[in-house]
This record gives sequence, structure tokens and C-alpha cells, in this order.
Amino acid sequence: MDKNRFAMTPPMGWNSYDYYDTTVNEEQVKANADYMAAHLKQYGWEYIVVDIQWYAYGAGSMRDKHQYIPFSKLEMDEYGRLLPCPERFPSAADGAGFKPLADYIHGLGLKFGIHIMRGIPRAAAQNHLPVLGSSQTADEVANPSSICGWNPDMYGLRKDMEGSQAYYDSLLALYAQWGVDYIKCDDICNTSIYRENQYSAAHEIEMLHKAIEKCGRSIVLSLSPGPALIEKAWHYEKYANMWRITDDFWDKWELLLNMFYRCELWQNHVTQGCYPDCDMLPLGWLGKGFGEERQTNFTKEEQVTMMTLWCIFRSPLMLGAEMPKLDEWTLSLLTNERVLALMGSEYHGVQVERDGVHAVWASRKNGEDAVYAALFNFNDEEKEVGVKTEDVYAAVSAEVPDLDQELVMEELWTGEVQQSRGSVISSVVKAHGAKLFCIRRA
Amino acid sequence: MDKNRFAMTPPMGWNSYDYYDTTVNEEQVKANADYMAAHLKQYGWEYIVVDIQWYAYGAGSMRDKHQYIPFSKLEMDEYGRLLPCPERFPSAADGAGFKPLADYIHGLGLKFGIHIMRGIPRAAAQNHLPVLGSSQTADEVANPSSICGWNPDMYGLRKDMEGSQAYYDSLLALYAQWGVDYIKCDDICNTSIYRENQYSAAHEIEMLHKAIEKCGRSIVLSLSPGPALIEKAWHYEKYANMWRITDDFWDKWELLLNMFYRCELWQNHVTQGCYPDCDMLPLGWLGKGFGEERQTNFTKEEQVTMMTLWCIFRSPLMLGAEMPKLDEWTLSLLTNERVLALMGSEYHGVQVERDGVHAVWASRKNGEDAVYAALFNFNDEEKEVGVKTEDVYAAVSAEVPDLDQELVMEELWTGEVQQSRGSVISSVVKAHGAKLFCIRRA
Amino acid sequence: MDKNRFAMTPPMGWNSYDYYDTTVNEEQVKANADYMAAHLKQYGWEYIVVDIQWYAYGAGSMRDKHQYIPFSKLEMDEYGRLLPCPERFPSAADGAGFKPLADYIHGLGLKFGIHIMRGIPRAAAQNHLPVLGSSQTADEVANPSSICGWNPDMYGLRKDMEGSQAYYDSLLALYAQWGVDYIKCDDICNTSIYRENQYSAAHEIEMLHKAIEKCGRSIVLSLSPGPALIEKAWHYEKYANMWRITDDFWDKWELLLNMFYRCELWQNHVTQGCYPDCDMLPLGWLGKGFGEERQTNFTKEEQVTMMTLWCIFRSPLMLGAEMPKLDEWTLSLLTNERVLALMGSEYHGVQVERDGVHAVWASRKNGEDAVYAALFNFNDEEKEVGVKTEDVYAAVSAEVPDLDQELVMEELWTGEVQQSRGSVISSVVKAHGAKLFCIRRA
Amino acid sequence: MDKNRFAMTPPMGWNSYDYYDTTVNEEQVKANADYMAAHLKQYGWEYIVVDIQWYAYGAGSMRDKHQYIPFSKLEMDEYGRLLPCPERFPSAADGAGFKPLADYIHGLGLKFGIHIMRGIPRAAAQNHLPVLGSSQTADEVANPSSICGWNPDMYGLRKDMEGSQAYYDSLLALYAQWGVDYIKCDDICNTSIYRENQYSAAHEIEMLHKAIEKCGRSIVLSLSPGPALIEKAWHYEKYANMWRITDDFWDKWELLLNMFYRCELWQNHVTQGCYPDCDMLPLGWLGKGFGEERQTNFTKEEQVTMMTLWCIFRSPLMLGAEMPKLDEWTLSLLTNERVLALMGSEYHGVQVERDGVHAVWASRKNGEDAVYAALFNFNDEEKEVGVKTEDVYAAVSAEVPDLDQELVMEELWTGEVQQSRGSVISSVVKAHGAKLFCIRRA
Repeated sequence: MDKNRFAMTPPMGWNSYDYYDTTVNEEQVKANADYMAAHLKQYGWEYIVVDIQWYAYGAGSMRDKHQYIPFSKLEMDEYGRLLPCPERFPSAADGAGFKPLADYIHGLGLKFGIHIMRGIPRAAAQNHLPVLGSSQTADEVANPSSICGWNPDMYGLRKDMEGSQAYYDSLLALYAQWGVDYIKCDDICNTSIYRENQYSAAHEIEMLHKAIEKCGRSIVLSLSPGPALIEKAWHYEKYANMWRITDDFWDKWELLLNMFYRCELWQNHVTQGCYPDCDMLPLGWLGKGFGEERQTNFTKEEQVTMMTLWCIFRSPLMLGAEMPKLDEWTLSLLTNERVLALMGSEYHGVQVERDGVHAVWASRKNGEDAVYAALFNFNDEEKEVGVKTEDVYAAVSAEVPDLDQELVMEELWTGEVQQSRGSVISSVVKAHGAKLFCIRRA
Repeated sequence: MDKNRFAMTPPMGWNSYDYYDTTVNEEQVKANADYMAAHLKQYGWEYIVVDIQWYAYGAGSMRDKHQYIPFSKLEMDEYGRLLPCPERFPSAADGAGFKPLADYIHGLGLKFGIHIMRGIPRAAAQNHLPVLGSSQTADEVANPSSICGWNPDMYGLRKDMEGSQAYYDSLLALYAQWGVDYIKCDDICNTSIYRENQYSAAHEIEMLHKAIEKCGRSIVLSLSPGPALIEKAWHYEKYANMWRITDDFWDKWELLLNMFYRCELWQNHVTQGCYPDCDMLPLGWLGKGFGEERQTNFTKEEQVTMMTLWCIFRSPLMLGAEMPKLDEWTLSLLTNERVLALMGSEYHGVQVERDGVHAVWASRKNGEDAVYAALFNFNDEEKEVGVKTEDVYAAVSAEVPDLDQELVMEELWTGEVQQSRGSVISSVVKAHGAKLFCIRRA
Repeated sequence: MDKNRFAMTPPMGWNSYDYYDTTVNEEQVKANADYMAAHLKQYGWEYIVVDIQWYAYGAGSMRDKHQYIPFSKLEMDEYGRLLPCPERFPSAADGAGFKPLADYIHGLGLKFGIHIMRGIPRAAAQNHLPVLGSSQTADEVANPSSICGWNPDMYGLRKDMEGSQAYYDSLLALYAQWGVDYIKCDDICNTSIYRENQYSAAHEIEMLHKAIEKCGRSIVLSLSPGPALIEKAWHYEKYANMWRITDDFWDKWELLLNMFYRCELWQNHVTQGCYPDCDMLPLGWLGKGFGEERQTNFTKEEQVTMMTLWCIFRSPLMLGAEMPKLDEWTLSLLTNERVLALMGSEYHGVQVERDGVHAVWASRKNGEDAVYAALFNFNDEEKEVGVKTEDVYAAVSAEVPDLDQELVMEELWTGEVQQSRGSVISSVVKAHGAKLFCIRRA
Repeated sequence: MDKNRFAMTPPMGWNSYDYYDTTVNEEQVKANADYMAAHLKQYGWEYIVVDIQWYAYGAGSMRDKHQYIPFSKLEMDEYGRLLPCPERFPSAADGAGFKPLADYIHGLGLKFGIHIMRGIPRAAAQNHLPVLGSSQTADEVANPSSICGWNPDMYGLRKDMEGSQAYYDSLLALYAQWGVDYIKCDDICNTSIYRENQYSAAHEIEMLHKAIEKCGRSIVLSLSPGPALIEKAWHYEKYANMWRITDDFWDKWELLLNMFYRCELWQNHVTQGCYPDCDMLPLGWLGKGFGEERQTNFTKEEQVTMMTLWCIFRSPLMLGAEMPKLDEWTLSLLTNERVLALMGSEYHGVQVERDGVHAVWASRKNGEDAVYAALFNFNDEEKEVGVKTEDVYAAVSAEVPDLDQELVMEELWTGEVQQSRGSVISSVVKAHGAKLFCIRRA
């Protein structure tokens, strides 16, 4: 199996976290899957991902004090493997696990993903549970010094221990049997509690990779949370399909602005099967499970900026919105085929320039004439954003046009066309907004 | 209660760790106490301290793999308070705790100390045990993100939570009832697993201090492990009696050499009731519990260096040796009254100078004429070590003698006397050795 | 000479920087000295300090671009020693240096101080000037890798080089001949450009100390800029009289608030001859040389807070105001004898408690009954600030009064008297303000 | 101009530093060029690079004290541009500069390179020299706070200042006129003196890149010293051709061992025109200018290891040896065409695995069947080094052969051929040595 063939282009899908936090249930997952199948599938959206603590009883019930209730009851089998909480996922009862839900989603022509925390449940270690396929027990494979800084459920697994690999193998065998297509593993991309070794779970990434290979199913491996460590780029590229390049991303302008720095940093690391991940898209309705249901705080211009950057950079696209509540405008943002085309495997996006008030990115498909240029305005007011034509073409290694040659610039969000000539590509861009041009010789 | 009156001079005693690791038992403690009462008490030695995991079953039984067996059985009462393991401390059975042993030690005219890990047992949290004197339970007061990097027994206690203070109050009430005189609390002086906040348990120090005040017994509070954080000196000074200024100290020359840096750093922080702690003295027979029983690796000269530094700096003196096996020479090192006198409350030791090959310290008793000077030779061969007379006297704010005045220098370890005149105090010192002079005008 | 006897209490004086930046001239210095002699001397204020670049031609003339003009003309003698620029200090002409000005100030019964940058002028090194009293030349003693991050005038001096000490000796001989009483040496307390070795000029501190001893004049040595390194406290204490515990302090509330953290850190390091320094008092008229003459931005309450903290902590007091423009109210702030008394050598101030909204400090004179308590309100609105009576008395090691004993609390800024009884000392304090009580048993 | 076409494969050449330090002269450069033309040119070796301080009088004359004599005489034109010291480069007299030497080297069919320090001479700034093509002067464009930590000659140039770009333009115009083909710019890849901003000269890299584009000559830009910052990989890739991924590399096994870590880190950053640089090859005779002429300390096995790693990683190859003294064996190491072929533009080398005792790298040419595998033995004794066949093929995205298919393995240094079958590729490798196999299906 070649993990770089599990996802030929950046995965596109939906994730339950931004709207539901820890609380999503089966019915809600299905409703979102139904919506995707009906409205988004045809544009390439395909993953339905159930995020954190689907195994926890009472998840979200003490939200004012704890996002994750310490030492609370978790649904678990006799081998220390977490199972869906049947109170929220009724079809999982009687050991069925996520298989019925996965079947439902597959029936819609979509793919099914789940979130996991790295490691083994603390309760399994305390109770000395057996590990399936190993003579070692949970207390032996659990590393009592390896915890997550923000979630109390698990211990990390020890390195170079047969039982550790066996535990992950047992997990993936179960997930493959359920029909899982995508795993978002958390507390593994950056184990930030350990400041001097933020990559302390590198061996667990390798074990997960091996367990996927052994399970025989092409399961995409997505690593969280960020920021991923640039000095480990080669390791992510070798063992995983996606890795978060930022801590949790939300609908705040400063975070979006900061993403330009992160994309600059990772721009030369986007290849087939290897996707630096800008995190979920906080669009539409959000925050219900957090006790503050709201529409995204981003302005429309900021939303255009986000989608333009994610697409030209070729980040995975994971929608955070409650899909059944999507409005027309937001839906149009997610279904612009000309823009989504930049996610294609033969495109490579690069930053042309960036400073405190603007950025310019360019992209091109190998062997094609057309050049794509995105102009971003970071100012709090409308401004003209310009860049040397030469620099755009050079950035994507395209032949620079003669300065007196006319260029046709088509803006891909609005369809507006403008002519351009001379040494500068420029346009007026709204506050915090973006324009994305397809440029051709006239 | 004024904690600065609990120990008017640096505590002197014995600690079970260097010889027994986690395995010491009642009989062994008594044998050491008997020896101290017979041979050392008269020189000021008085504390008998039982170090780590006196509550653990099977402690030391998997020594090749684990110093502390993860998730193993701990003796614990119904309020999550750890009790002496009755297999090793028979007199503790039936809820007697350490009281019988403390009584025995008090009967010898000595004092009794115990080691604790900060926090509450992980098992108590997992099992939702009640906290005595509080409506909160262990799972509520335990902080699942606050662990020790090297011992798996406990969780730290949450800040600003009534039940956390109640738990420590319940501990100290029990210890006071047992007759404990000294607590060495571990994983608290430097919580080094948290690199960006190595003082993450500051609130637990304050809670322990309050619990001691409430318990009504003058219990010395000793904090481990080091290195203590110099920027928190004021906080240690406010709430504790001793704090380790080094990570575990053993019988290696590099560690001893390094201690000169540490004493330099802390020299102006030694005051009544406040003692920066250079850690146990690895003298005599050591290491049995570690599976490598041996005599100290220090040469005799290095042992003299260590004792000279600890005494002139006024560190607590905690003997790591198995006392019943002490030889005559080592015993003489521990019972030199002229040297031990420098530990007195009116002395203040300061570094005069230090470089890669030597150091000089000086001390003086307020109001007295005699000046003490320690010459240390860091070279691997015998060398003459010299220092300007003027600098020694200035360092202890004493009036500098005339250069042509004769000085009488008495070496306190050997009793040798030499005359000196002129601007330099100097003597030939053996490799890694020290000379400690009492200097008076002739 | 014992440097700890050069200043028996924290120095009090005036510094030209806050008002004049680099531009102060002889006439202006004299005008300020005259004012001090007439209005402040009787309260203990005595130092007149000429701050940075008194040797530079054209200082301040390119203020929009450079605070210190790179590679500009400096007045210098044939041994690379900087001299007062005669355009601004006419009496310094013909080699008189600062002697005439120092004489004038001494004639008023005051003391005279100057600012210097550590090291030797870059121009002296480039031109291979001789060093007085040494066969080495400036290019040999200058360390081309040791510069100041913010001032381009000097190179640091090499370690362990005879000519380096000779250069400092030649400086101090000159200054002693001029009659200098106080040196504020800059770029030496924290050489922050060298992040991994912010104490890279430790040897220059030692050389300055030696040069002062050799020159035979009791010249106070003040080190800048901060923040001083707490792990070098012992070194400052051994070689200097004052050291800045903060970067430049200005009239901004956040900086004042931050000083409470700094005083907490350094509280146990204030002893005779050793003064952690909170920096100049930005009161009255400020900023003229910076091109923005203004009155202090501090509210009156904030000014009271500052004076209370500086005095109870026992920081040196260096006035930044243009003294001839002082108003009555500000003058009263500087001449409150009851408050200034806390600067006395037998007082020791300590923090009792501090959090995000308030702080309490206490002080006491050895052997006296009266206890001083300062209550600080960090809120943006008036609030009641309270503290346990017991904690205040314990902090200064005073016997705690009976809870039913009546206490008389006299507020030292207003003279108001209130009675208190019971376990709490408390008072309503204005936003960002302070109250300073002298508390006695009724 | 597209800088990625300046060097289609990693540059190969000779550098004067390892043998001559700062002292190389014209005759010596020519002798080395003659040798290269006669013996190495045909294998792709082509650059002759004159390293540091070709402009300094007396370079090397105080080698016991200074590698670079501070404030010494530098040959410089009226615009502050450094010129070859005519005492060592006689043909440079009368303003001819390096043109005659470059002509000579070009005449041999080779290319000519020089070393520069970033910035402008300190002497030019102190003397306010004009900048060619600008109204600004050296004192205005020099940044007095931007120095090199180990060489005292220069100041960095200010950012966003017209005269700074003009100065670099004037340099490159001169170098282009001389016929320079390669610039090794120092103190720019990692300005390590500034620990918090080790990329403080990023703007100078951009200015040099622009100046090269303006000068119209395809001058390769090589950046030193390392370690290059992995988080700036995108920036090096955009503006430079080579960047040092290590601090100075010498003939010590620990440094060679460490290079495996560095190559692991940078393996996915080797593309046409972009070459992470492992530094010079310390082979043959070395160290004369350092006062310790010697043959390389590397064993023959270590030399094979070095060459194998440099080639499979595709580092530039810059020979440090005095070429006229090369022995047969070393020459054979440099002229193995089968090994050097791995430097070709269609090869990509990757690490397959690495631990404390061994490493395996693999490479393959796009579209070809043959797979290359390098087995490295880090042990101090001969050992068998093995790797899963599957892992080697997967690492270079080649189809994994059937386990029962026979493979023919040809070792490229010795020509030995071995058959292999099954799941493991393995061979006995000498201590610190390497074997490099070309593997084909039988």
C-alpha cells in the first residue's frame, strides 16, 4: 500500500467539531451526510468526520467547567478499545460500533471518518486490561508520563514495545471492520505539553501508519493539533496524509491573517498524499455545542480570503458549519468549480510576496499557459493591491509576457474580466478581501 | 506559628534513599536511628527521614524496568491518603500509620521525617474517593493535566479549590497525629516536566504551608527536586524551610564541581529558617536498593571538599549512607565540631572567587574576629591555591589586617597550623581537595 | 574601601534623561541643581546626574531618524577618553572636563554624577589610539564583537587583558579628578543584544569596581539598563551599588503595574550599599528632548502608587522631571518626610500578597512597634482593598496583635487616621491608587 | 533571469579555505586551477573559489591570537568596495581586481568564485565614504548594530534603504566585470550572534539576489555559514542557489555522523537550482594556513561514507584539499563516475531509516528501474547492515519486487556484485563505512 495514493487531492469534507463540540449524535451526523450527498458531493466534498469524545457518557454536560470531564465514564470493550457511546449512537449498541453509521454514509456515496486521541484509555491502564493480540496488558504499554495537556482520557503508548503496536493494530482492525475511511488522530502532531519535545509521539505516528498498512484498508491519516513542526516535515510526509499547521482555527481575523505566515512556511510541502492542513472552515452556523450558537464572525470578504488561500495553497477543506443550515451565499462559496480546480493534483501554489498590508499568491497547472494570481488586502479599508507581472510569472516558472502584451484577467469569484498591460498586475480589493484572477495572454 | 523558627539552623539528619531506594523497611529505619542516637546525635544530627514509596506494595521488585511500578497497588485509606505499606512497616497495621515508628524515634531523642509526592493518588481520582472535610471528591480536586514526569503515583491538586486545601489539611492532620517532624515533598520545587512553567505547583507549596500552620505542629517543609528556580527565591523563603538547589546529587566529581556554581548562585539566600539545600551526602555505603551496593565513589579529598562546601555554605546535611556500616574515617568527617560550627545561625558564608581550577569561600560569625577561609582545588593534581588576604576579609566585611601583620591559620580538618604574612593566603591542596582555615591575628 | 558604605541609603537625585534626552547643556544642569539645593536637598535629594552622550556633537539633531547618530563626531582626548562636548558644556573647554561643573554642584552641597557607556569608542579602536598607562592600544583592547544593540558609540573591552583594566583605570582617574560622585554605566547590567549571554560584560563590571577602588574616590556605581538578571544578584551585590531591574521606565500604567512583579522578585535583595533600581520617576514635565514635551501621563493616584512602591521597596529615587517647572502638588509628593523615612537603612519592605487586582506591601524598622502597610488598587475603579492583619504582621516578623485589640492606622499621604479592629486591615482605595498606613496598637 | 538555471546540478569545485585559511595567493590559486583542469574537470568539477579575506593585508600574520585581525588594513576603493590585496594577488594591482585571475581560470575551461562577507566595511562607515550610484554615504547605509560575531570587517546594510541596494549593485557590477561566476556570501545564512533573529540579514539575501539579476551575469549565490534555518527553507529556495546546512564541517567523525541528521532534515528540499549544502570535503592535505598542516583525519571508510552521503543527498561538492598534493586513492574517490551520476538532476535521494548505529538511503532516477541503496554503519566495528527490501523500494516510490525474485546488487565503490533474494537487503559494512548498491532485477 502506498499511503500517498489514499488521497490524490486534498481531502474535502465536513467535521462535527465547530458546531457540535463533543455532543454530536447519530441523527445529526446523518442529517449532515444527507445534505452533503444532495448538495456538495458533486463538487468533490466527500468526508463525514465525527470529532472528539464520541465514546464519552455525559459529554458536554459540564461545559461551564470542563470541555472534557475528567475521570468520567467512557464506553470501552474488554481490550481497552473505545466504542461509540450508545446513548448518542443507538446503532452502535450490542457491539456494532460505527459500522451501521459508516454503512449509511457509504450508501450515500460518501466516506466516513472518526477522531481519536492517541494512546490507550487511562481507565484501561488503571484496571490492567488485556491488549488484543498481545500478552502485555494496558498498564504495561501505557506510558504514565505521556499525557495530553488538554484532554484527560488517555495515556500515550510506550515506544519499542510489542504490545503498543498490537494495541494500535487492534484499533485499526476494528475501524477497518467498521468501514472507517479517515482517522483524525489528536495530541500527536504537536504534543505541546512537552515543550522540549513537542514531537514526543513520533513513534505513535509510525505505529499508526503500520497499523493502517496491516489493516488493509486505505484509511487517510490526519494529524492534530498544530502547529506542526516544520523541522519534522519529512516525517509527516513519510507517515501521514495531513497534518495541522496551526492550532485550532476559528473565525477571527487575526487567525486568518496569521495563516498567511503558516502557508508561506509550508508552501513547498504540498504534494500528492501529503497535505499541510489549515484546519476546518468556520463558516455558516457554528458553536452550538460550545453554548454560543452563532453565524461565523467572518465578513463575506474574509470568507472569500479564506477560501482563496485554502484553495490556492491546496489545504484540505473541512467544513465546520452545520450543513443543513447553509445559506445560498455560503453554499456558492463552497461550490465554485473554477476555484476548487486549483486543488487539483497538477497545481502548485506559491507565495509571490507578503508584508503587513497585503499578500500575493500564484498558481499554475503544469504545462498550461494560464497563470492564477490571488491578491489579498490586509488593510481595514479598500485598497489597490498590485504586484509586478514579472514576479508572478517567475514565481510559477512561467515565461514572462512582453510588457506591451495584453493580458486578460478573469476574476474567479465574480466572473468580472479586466484587461491588463504592462509591468504590474493590480486591482482594487475590499477590506480583508481577496481577488483571484485567471490570467491569459489576449 | 513562624515557620522560620521550626529550624534555627540547617537541619541535619539521615535519609533512606541513597542506600535503600524505594525499599527501606521498619527494622532498617530503626537500626539507623539507633546508630544516630548512639554516635551522631551529640553533634547535632537528629532527623530520620523515610524516603519515597513507603506506601507501595512490591516497591523495588521490578527494578530493572521501573523505579516506580506504574499503576501498582498502593496502601491508601478511604479518603485517598496513603499509608505505610504494612508488609514493610508492620507496626503501621490496623491504621496505626507511622505513629509507632515515630514514637520509637522520638524515644531516642531524634526527629522523624517522611517523603511525600505532591498531590493525590491517581487511583483515588479514578475511583472518585471522598476528601475528608470536604464535599468535593478526588476526581474533582485532582488535576488530570498535572503529573510528575518520573513518578506515576499522583495527580497534582487544582488551584483555588476548597477541596484541594482540605485534602492537604487532612494529610497534615494525620501526619501531626503520627508525630511527623519533617516533610520532604517531591515534584514540587521544580516541576520540570512543564518546561514553560517549572513552578506550576506554587499553589501547592502555599497549601502545604497553610496545612502545616493549621495542624499545629512545627513540621519542617523541605521541597524537592531541584534545581530550585532562583527567580522564585522569595517564594521559597516565604513558604518553605529548605529547597533543593540541584537535581539528584550523587557521588560524581562533575556534580560536586557543579555544586560550586549552585552555591555561588544561592549564597545570599541562606537565612534562619530558609535553607537552600545541596541534597544528600553520598558517603559510606550506598546503592543497595538500586542493585549496586557500593562504597562512595568520592575520594577522601572529594569528601572533604563536599563537607567543607556544605558546611560553609550552610546547606542542610542529610546523610545518605547506611549508618550502621559507617567506618571510622567517615564518622570523623561527620563529627568535626569545629567544622560543624560554621552551620551556626550567626555565620554567613560567601564565595570570594571561583574559576575553572579553584574556588575560595569565606565565613565569619557576626562580631567575632576570626575569619574562616576554604581553599578548594579543582585540578586533577595537587596545587597551591592562593587568594588575596584583602579579598577574603572584604568578602565577610571584616577589617583587613595590615600586610605585615602575622596571621595564624589553623586548618580545621587536620589541626595543622601555619603562619602567614603579607597579601596572600595560600596553601598546597590535594587534587579535588579542600583546606578550611580559621584565621586569627597572631 | 567598602563599596557598601558609598551609599548608606538608596541614592536620591535627578537625572537629565527623561526631560532632555541627549541634549542637556551646562546651563540647564545648573538650573536644576539650583532648584534641588533650594527645595529638595533638605529631604535627602542630592545627586545631579548628566545622562547619555554629553560627549557628542550634534546630539539630538537627527532625532526623527536616530536617537544616537551613527559614526558622528565625539569629543575625545588622545587616549580615547570621551570629554564633554564644549558646544554644550563651555566650562569643559581646554581640557577642564566636568571639573568646573562638578565644583559648582559641590558648592551647592550636592553630588555630581555622569552617564557612561561601557567600553571604548569605536573611533578610538579604528584609529589605534594609545591607552594611558598601558603599552596596548585601543584596537587591541576593543572587542569588535561586543557592541551595544541600541547605541553605536563604543566597543566593549576584552576580558583578561591588562590594557582593558588600564583603560578603565584611566577613565576613573579622570572622573575622580573631575570630582564625579556617581557613575551610571549603560549597556552593562543586561547586554540584551546577546540573548544567550545577557551578562556578557560581567568582567567590565568587575573592572569598573576595581578602577573605582584604585581611584580612591567613593564613586557610586549604578548599572543600566535592565532588566537585571536575578541569577546574577550575588554578582551585582558584590560589585555595584545599584542595578536597574527594569528596561526603561516611563509614565505608562502597564509599566507601573509590571513593576510590582519586579519588586516582588527583588524584595529580598535590598541591603546597605545594594539597591535594585526601579528607574527614574517620570513626574512633572518630561520629554522635551524627545520632541514631545508634556506633563507626566500618570494620574495623581498613579503617582502616589509609584512613590509608595519605590519608597517601601527602597528603590533609589531619581527624578526625571525638569525641576524648575515642578508644581506644588508634585513637590509635595517628593517631600513627604514620613514616606521618605521608609527609605531608611533599618527598614525592610516585603510583599504580603499580590494578584491581578491588588497588592499589599509591609515594612517595619528593626526593633520598632509600628508596622507600615501599603494597599494598592490595580482596578480601573475605586475598590476596597483588604488583607489579613495576621499576614501583614507575619510578613515583617512582628508579633501579631490580638484580634480584639484596637489598631490606629494613619495614612501617610493624607494624614487621615482610622481605627481598626479584628482580623482584616482594609480601606477604600482609588483606581490605580495606593494608601500607605502606619499602624500602631491603640 | 531564472536563478534556478544558474546551476542545473549541485556545483562541484574547490575552495581555498580548508588548506589555506585566510592566506591563499594568486600563484596557489592558479596551481590548484591547473590541477583541476588536468585531472578533475572531465568529471564535472569546475569551480575555483577564493575564500575569506583576499582583501586583507597581513592576513594570517597573528594566527595565534586572531583569525581575522581587528581594525587592520583592508584594500578598498573610494566607494568602500573591497579589492584583492595586491601583496597576495599581484595581477590585481592598478585597479584590475580579480579580472586577470578570472580570465586565467576561464581560460582553463573552469569557473571562478569568491567569498564575501555581507555588508560594508566598518572602515568605510567610520570614514563616511560615498556609495557608487547613490547620494547616500557608507555611514548612512551601514547598520552599526549589525555585525558578524566572528569577523570584524563589516557592518550589515540597512533594510529598505536605497543606498543599501545601490551598494550591493555596485559590488555585483564590479564582480560581473571581473568575470565572477560564484559568490559565497558569509554571515548571512545564519547570523547566529543574534539568537532571537538568526535570519536578521534576510533583506541582504534579497538585495544580493536583485543585484545579481541586475548585473546580467549568471552568478551562483551560495550562503554561509550554517546551520541554515529549516523554517526559512522557502526563502533560501526563492533567492539563493546553495545554503549551508551545518556550521563549519571538518574531518571529525562526530560531525560526519551529525550530517546524517542534517540530511534527513533537508532531504525534501533538493531541487534544480536549490541545493542544501553539506560544506567542503576535508580530504587530502588540509590545515596549512591554520598552522597545522595535516592529512585528513578521516579514515578511508569515513571518506567513503562522506562521499556517498554527499552524492546521494545531492549536496554541492567543494573540495577542501590542496589539489596538487592529492594521492591516487583520494583522486579515485572524486572521480567515480557511477557515484557522481547520483548528483544528476533526475535523481532524488531519501533516507529510508536511521538510528544510532546505522542509516540507509535510497535514490532512483525518474522512470528508471534501477534503485540505489546506501548502507551506512555507524558502529566502531564492522557490522552487517540490513534493511527491508520493501522499505527501500517504497521510499523511492518504485514497484516492490516479488520476494522470490532475484536481485543483482552492484557495489559502486568496489564493483563487487552480489545476488540477493527475499525480504532484506543486507551487507557487511566496515566500521564507519558505507556501501552503495545499484540494484536491478536479475
